[in-house]
Amino acid sequence: MSRKDKIIDGKKIASEIQEELYSEIQVLKTVSPKKPGLAVILVGNRKDSQAYVRMKKKMARKLGIVDFEKNLPENISQEELLQVVTEYNNNPEVNGILVQLPLPKHIDEETILNAISPEKDVDGFSPINMGNLCMKGRDPLFVPCTPKGCIELIKRSGVNISGKKAVIVGRSNIVGLPISFLLLHENATITVCHSRTKDIAKEVKDADIVIAALGAPEFVKGDWIKKGAVIIDVGINAVPDKTKKRGYRLVGDVDFEGCLKNASKITPVPGGVGPQTIIQLMKSTVEGFKRQNGIKKLL
Amino acid sequence: MSRKDKIIDGKKIASEIQEELYSEIQVLKTVSPKKPGLAVILVGNRKDSQAYVRMKKKMARKLGIVDFEKNLPENISQEELLQVVTEYNNNPEVNGILVQLPLPKHIDEETILNAISPEKDVDGFSPINMGNLCMKGRDPLFVPCTPKGCIELIKRSGVNISGKKAVIVGRSNIVGLPISFLLLHENATITVCHSRTKDIAKEVKDADIVIAALGAPEFVKGDWIKKGAVIIDVGINAVPDKTKKRGYRLVGDVDFEGCLKNASKITPVPGGVGPQTIIQLMKSTVEGFKRQNGIKKLL
Repeated sequence: MSRKDKIIDGKKIASEIQEELYSEIQVLKTVSPKKPGLAVILVGNRKDSQAYVRMKKKMARKLGIVDFEKNLPENISQEELLQVVTEYNNNPEVNGILVQLPLPKHIDEETILNAISPEKDVDGFSPINMGNLCMKGRDPLFVPCTPKGCIELIKRSGVNISGKKAVIVGRSNIVGLPISFLLLHENATITVCHSRTKDIAKEVKDADIVIAALGAPEFVKGDWIKKGAVIIDVGINAVPDKTKKRGYRLVGDVDFEGCLKNASKITPVPGGVGPQTIIQLMKSTVEGFKRQNGIKKLL
Repeated sequence: MSRKDKIIDGKKIASEIQEELYSEIQVLKTVSPKKPGLAVILVGNRKDSQAYVRMKKKMARKLGIVDFEKNLPENISQEELLQVVTEYNNNPEVNGILVQLPLPKHIDEETILNAISPEKDVDGFSPINMGNLCMKGRDPLFVPCTPKGCIELIKRSGVNISGKKAVIVGRSNIVGLPISFLLLHENATITVCHSRTKDIAKEVKDADIVIAALGAPEFVKGDWIKKGAVIIDVGINAVPDKTKKRGYRLVGDVDFEGCLKNASKITPVPGGVGPQTIIQLMKSTVEGFKRQNGIKKLL
């Protein structure tokens, strides 16, 4: 298998989804005078968060999704932030609400996320959506965007998940856990590893599908990878690199060159999972729009 | 290790918890004139469900928990059943509501379970409680009784869970999944197997802790068990046995005699996990009582 055939082109898959979604929005225009609306709430001045919000806004505009943006000062009180969430909860033009994480330390993340109406919780992090996600046979209103995108990447790469052994490295509420639930619902046998796992290498060596989502640069090594395994690298880490103009380069949680050898499919960083997060957010916003306006699936 | 030292005495552990709970209820009497109340709703005439409800009732009375019982006819409408749930939701003397499962086919289980106020959902099956259970760092109001009991059995047997490899066979919403979440929160590395798993034996062979919860008599075999493994058998199956007066005997999901050899600890069936389900339900009812009446932890 050639190098090119092994690498999952995340940008290409995202732009395919973008085209599908664009077409759907055109059809929606013929049945409803309203437009899907997404509210993104950004607190403080974190450069990475600002960049993510910018990308989300840009994509929304491209697709004809109205973006409601709130840039709030770092020192906003929890009470004031809750008020912003409530306003968006009550605004019928807003179909999805996203609070860019992380929040400043004086604000309780859980309180804020729980305040978002489950009907508009496009990130899918509210307990009721997570509960319906983790259980078998339930329908969460929204599925967290990055995990949903990972499944989409696997499926659109022609990989059958059912019966496969999937090893998830990382157990965060926003990535590792929800991906585990989705893979389990797709009938994978799942193993969840984390910082307390005695021998992560041994677990990964047994995997048909590896999900790396722990947030440690190039943690997963090439000799851990079983021949033919599919690797989805959710990590994005800046490591110092003097040869680069900006002084660093971005790497995933996987040693890409090392893991490429045995893998049958692998996502690069950047250009793998990243673009999924944004396009899946748009897709979820449109799903929310349809549900909130009683518009049945059209396409 | 002797046979006796290997077998986890579920009855003994349950009666220890019963004594602790009894003492706590005595203390509660000194601070509140109210009594904890548990409502058990039984629909239809299933013999096994009737037996479970009888046992729950008996234990409640022993402990001084007021039992509100509703035996409803098999042909009750979903609407009428919902009304019963609503009445108990609104009754301040009821601190916990349990709907005995399974329900007749014409009633949608999910609708009924979702109607129980999360504040009184002693079974912990409502999406909001499951969502807070599956996520890290959240506090569900109630944890499902059988899974909670399994963890209690492991801990009271002196087994340290952190860093261990736990293999859960079965992924039901009421047992397999919630046990996986609890073990993960205790820092076990978890693998969830099910009907679509290619080689369950291979997965189990790697386990330090085996949870058998698939509902198939003596499914887990002795030669799958790693030396020193801890086995928790959640299954309870009736298999035909002409030597018994009643024509059957009860076995778990584990071949007990076969698995005993390599195990360091193993629960028998009956007398292992079973008694936990009931006593944990009582414990959860008392927790609900304290929370609903603003009584802080006393013991």
